[in-house]
Amino acid sequence: MSSAEPTFQKAIRWHPPSYDIRVESIPVPQIQHPDDAIVKVTLAALCGSDLHIYRGHGGVDKVHTCGHEFIGEVVSLGSNFGRPALYAQLKVGDRVVSPFTVNCGECSVCRLGYTGRCPEGLLFGSPNLEGGQAQYVRVPKAGGTLFNLSDPSTWSSSMSKDEKEKALIKLTDSSLLMLADILPTGVFAALQAINHPKVAPVITGRPWPLYKVLTVAIIGLGPVGVCAAISMLDALTIRQVPFRIVAIDPVEARREKMKAVYTTIVQAGEETGEFVVLSIEEAKEKVADWTGGVGCTTVLEVVGNTSALSLAYDLVRAFGIVVSVGVHGPPPLPFTGRQCYNKNVSLDFGRCPARAMFPLAFDLLGFIGEPASLIDRVVDFTEAADSYRAFDKGEVGKVIFDPWK
Amino acid sequence: MSSAEPTFQKAIRWHPPSYDIRVESIPVPQIQHPDDAIVKVTLAALCGSDLHIYRGHGGVDKVHTCGHEFIGEVVSLGSNFGRPALYAQLKVGDRVVSPFTVNCGECSVCRLGYTGRCPEGLLFGSPNLEGGQAQYVRVPKAGGTLFNLSDPSTWSSSMSKDEKEKALIKLTDSSLLMLADILPTGVFAALQAINHPKVAPVITGRPWPLYKVLTVAIIGLGPVGVCAAISMLDALTIRQVPFRIVAIDPVEARREKMKAVYTTIVQAGEETGEFVVLSIEEAKEKVADWTGGVGCTTVLEVVGNTSALSLAYDLVRAFGIVVSVGVHGPPPLPFTGRQCYNKNVSLDFGRCPARAMFPLAFDLLGFIGEPASLIDRVVDFTEAADSYRAFDKGEVGKVIFDPWK
Repeated sequence: MSSAEPTFQKAIRWHPPSYDIRVESIPVPQIQHPDDAIVKVTLAALCGSDLHIYRGHGGVDKVHTCGHEFIGEVVSLGSNFGRPALYAQLKVGDRVVSPFTVNCGECSVCRLGYTGRCPEGLLFGSPNLEGGQAQYVRVPKAGGTLFNLSDPSTWSSSMSKDEKEKALIKLTDSSLLMLADILPTGVFAALQAINHPKVAPVITGRPWPLYKVLTVAIIGLGPVGVCAAISMLDALTIRQVPFRIVAIDPVEARREKMKAVYTTIVQAGEETGEFVVLSIEEAKEKVADWTGGVGCTTVLEVVGNTSALSLAYDLVRAFGIVVSVGVHGPPPLPFTGRQCYNKNVSLDFGRCPARAMFPLAFDLLGFIGEPASLIDRVVDFTEAADSYRAFDKGEVGKVIFDPWK
Repeated sequence: MSSAEPTFQKAIRWHPPSYDIRVESIPVPQIQHPDDAIVKVTLAALCGSDLHIYRGHGGVDKVHTCGHEFIGEVVSLGSNFGRPALYAQLKVGDRVVSPFTVNCGECSVCRLGYTGRCPEGLLFGSPNLEGGQAQYVRVPKAGGTLFNLSDPSTWSSSMSKDEKEKALIKLTDSSLLMLADILPTGVFAALQAINHPKVAPVITGRPWPLYKVLTVAIIGLGPVGVCAAISMLDALTIRQVPFRIVAIDPVEARREKMKAVYTTIVQAGEETGEFVVLSIEEAKEKVADWTGGVGCTTVLEVVGNTSALSLAYDLVRAFGIVVSVGVHGPPPLPFTGRQCYNKNVSLDFGRCPARAMFPLAFDLLGFIGEPASLIDRVVDFTEAADSYRAFDKGEVGKVIFDPWK
């Protein structure tokens, strides 16, 4: 690390047992392993899944730095960064965004694209790895983990090198920060749905003689739900698939945010389908009306609790698919084997392999442009505790911290 | 119906509350609706899912004729059989096999291939529809439901018309009866697995640089489990996919049956992989050994209870898929949302759309030839009660009734 970097830094720290957020001065992290990088954080975001530990639901008792969404600049690299391929591409000074989990990028799991379950994986902002809501963060397995915005040749894209560079000039850090979690998770949700063999026929339009319209419900319009909706709209527009999408949230402010984002990104006349934003009861009626009581071909569950899963079950058609990207807790699933059998339901669960989704999420950013409307406020660390409180209460949407303000 | 048919018949009837099977003389069924057919049953089989009602688990209190697997000959047709397409193809005298549920064949659900959930669907051998363990059975929506073995032009196949006819000459009724439920259900289980986007890469061999071998577990080696294994072996052999399959059952007699069937159908040297038949504990060790502790890419659950589902969860890899074709009961699923999230597990549940799978199952019959080794005994109705008892106790495997013996 250059001698210009300080030895102490400010960080947002969680204290047990719950609801206790403090801004503290702690040592700037150092390289511990030859694959490590130290990143100077320019922006870090607050995410719905940060609330699990915040509320004391995580069974955690270790004080640690919060946060798993951050963007910044590499200020120091371990000794392995001379070796070929993956770990040779990073340089001090590179602008990088990190996925919310570490992944080595070299094992069979990573190379299958399942980066979210790399055996070396660690979640930032957990007892096992200090988070990114700080001025500096240590990134293990940095060659596999970090997405190098300074070198567009390091990722494939539907854009040319020129187009990538133009997009990068246009995109601010606060937009690129959406790559850390919420945008790839939205992309993952949409992709799992449209690639499923029960959904694919309506996408290709071939052995699907009767349903020419894909009916989709998206449950939960927090930031990830909004990203899932954007991603689904993008995926279906690109493929010219006629659709009917209902985006659902019980909270009016979230519905209004969804509508505002939709208006910003969709040019009237471009849509290949209908998009409505409704409360739960309204949505049930709408789906029944659209499908003659049959139900949606696919439902995206972007909440992570049993009532959202139950609603998904109610809304999906027989032989339909529920894609759940919500972070679920300890309760049992809210349906029986009999119910699953009776509806021939398919379920896809789990954590987004964010690093593997980055190129697709970047393409999506290029498509929607500056998604500033997704962000509610950019604040400094003095507002950390209050921001957690307000986010927990649903009083604000996406909050971003500037550690240097 | 021709005047040659009697007015009374023998039928195997279930009486509440449980374990009460009687052979009774009841009226031969008559056409009730213009879409009906009356089928003279040549053979009917006993199926694992018949045991739900037998044991009194179905909440049923209506005396009815049992059974949903039957093959026979059309002896009478309703007045709608002059109309075009589907309902014009059946004639009196046709040799037919029926799927275990009725389906109209004309609605959007059927035309999507989801025949198991046709809104007009009824399960044979239930309080809603008299079953096929009788000398005669009424088949509603017969044009959509029945598979017409007398007219091979009515189904598509990888075989030519000549090959189909040759296969039909070779296949006995007891083999063709496997089409009613167990063979298509096995095909459905295998197809759901190999078509899933999490499994497809290893099938195509393309974006799957490291795992060149598909590791599969099949839980439950009753008749359907054996068919699922046959179907998976067939599907992977045709595609030349290297595989490792472990077929699992705690009951030694079932494992021996599986091994015997495997030896009968697989010519040594033809296999593109390894196939082993093991007990539960042996299988856990084998999967850990094969995959270095990672787990199977796909697990087929062919039992229908929570302990089988739990074992499936234990054996599947992160980002793997569990295909469950078991008929499940009222207990909740044996995993939490957290467990599903943590393993990025995908689950496909539900009833086989048997009628839609018939052409594929027929192709499979053509491939494996006479699967006589699947059948344990062919008995007359005097052995009905004892056969139910012995099947319930696991003392026998697949039992077939000859109503005319």
